[in-house]
Amino acid sequence: MLKKGPLLYEGKGKKVHSVEGHSDRIILFFKDSLTAYEGAKKGSFTGKGAICRNVFSLVFRYLKTQGVLNHWIEDRGAEESVCLKTHIIPLEVVIRNRLAGSTAKRLGLEEGNSIPSPLLEYYYKKDELHDPFVSEDQIIQLSLIKEKNILPEIKTQAFLINEKLKAFFSEAGIELIDFKMEFGTTSKGLILADDITPDSCRLWDMKDGWRMDKDRFRQGWGQVEKGYQTILEKISQRWKKELDEGLS
Amino acid sequence: MLKKGPLLYEGKGKKVHSVEGHSDRIILFFKDSLTAYEGAKKGSFTGKGAICRNVFSLVFRYLKTQGVLNHWIEDRGAEESVCLKTHIIPLEVVIRNRLAGSTAKRLGLEEGNSIPSPLLEYYYKKDELHDPFVSEDQIIQLSLIKEKNILPEIKTQAFLINEKLKAFFSEAGIELIDFKMEFGTTSKGLILADDITPDSCRLWDMKDGWRMDKDRFRQGWGQVEKGYQTILEKISQRWKKELDEGLS
Repeated sequence: MLKKGPLLYEGKGKKVHSVEGHSDRIILFFKDSLTAYEGAKKGSFTGKGAICRNVFSLVFRYLKTQGVLNHWIEDRGAEESVCLKTHIIPLEVVIRNRLAGSTAKRLGLEEGNSIPSPLLEYYYKKDELHDPFVSEDQIIQLSLIKEKNILPEIKTQAFLINEKLKAFFSEAGIELIDFKMEFGTTSKGLILADDITPDSCRLWDMKDGWRMDKDRFRQGWGQVEKGYQTILEKISQRWKKELDEGLS
Repeated sequence: MLKKGPLLYEGKGKKVHSVEGHSDRIILFFKDSLTAYEGAKKGSFTGKGAICRNVFSLVFRYLKTQGVLNHWIEDRGAEESVCLKTHIIPLEVVIRNRLAGSTAKRLGLEEGNSIPSPLLEYYYKKDELHDPFVSEDQIIQLSLIKEKNILPEIKTQAFLINEKLKAFFSEAGIELIDFKMEFGTTSKGLILADDITPDSCRLWDMKDGWRMDKDRFRQGWGQVEKGYQTILEKISQRWKKELDEGLS
């Protein structure tokens, strides 16, 4: 078994460790903690890390079967996955299929409004600046990222991943409202990195609109654990067997 | 002489009146007041309205000679201009030739950094939302403006106006760092509206970088009146005779 190396980075929802003797790998450890409003609101529940690891793993394994290159390699214990080490591009790439969250608020528009075609947004990852929303022109002309020539590929990948994930979730009875991606580069090019979990998606029940994601915590609606569990149950029921067989 | 009608709108730097018997015209009255930080900082100096009217008039008359359609028709008294009435598109269109102001601050970058090619930004005009920065995709996909099909034309015009104004100011020894435009539509199509004055531009002396615009007030550097006066003197000296003759 791989031996966990030193902590490389600790984020709000996970820890990233190096792997002894394997400089091209990392271990993601999913924490039980929940934070919102840039860390001003804190919480946790036992088993949250394991749920997020399992959602991450199902999503990234599914994307692999769909030809979307990503950093997932294998799961490890209940709360960890081994992943390929990448050079992370400091952009949060958000796709919105329906309006919600910070953009609805900033623009004074109603949550839940449909958007005629998926809206892609970039946020510049800088904690001290509170991850400001940026335009493609700003990224390019102000050289916010070194890899600016890669933006067209990021955009193509992001829309493709959105189409794949809309199908992945909708077959499990869940509507994908919006989600956040981060990309990394390796010697082989661009790949999807970081994670996709109920912490970084909005996921609404297709039957009754019940919200199952981090907004339950953010907005103080309660039943956070039930929301996260329901997401995992629904996607496991639809996809787990298929993915386990496909990979065996 | 045209008779001023009721006040249609009062902004931070000017009043807009209707014109009796001429439903297709408005009168802009430039106020002596100065505001910054969304009205939190207030000031004024006598003659500021007249300076801004004269800068506006020279800029818009110059743009007309360069084939840029705009709403200026004629000056009136010291602080007013008669303009064509347009339907204003609720976007502030900003062009930056060198980095300064809110974008430098939001992105943690140094003021004065050069930008390889002009950067165009849109801000959604909504006082209660504090005119948020928006991307072209947001404008289109969230239908922030009714006239979204006109965006490519706005962009073309904005870059063209920037080239014209960089030349206009640089021939007067002034570097145009950034400026804000608003566009309107009439039955004949898109035209440049609102105003361009030291309130809405950054203008630095090309010799020594001395800043002459509203940043003197915003940042509390003093000599606000001298800054505004210097801008008007420099552009008048270079352009007034030529424009007066051209229009006579």
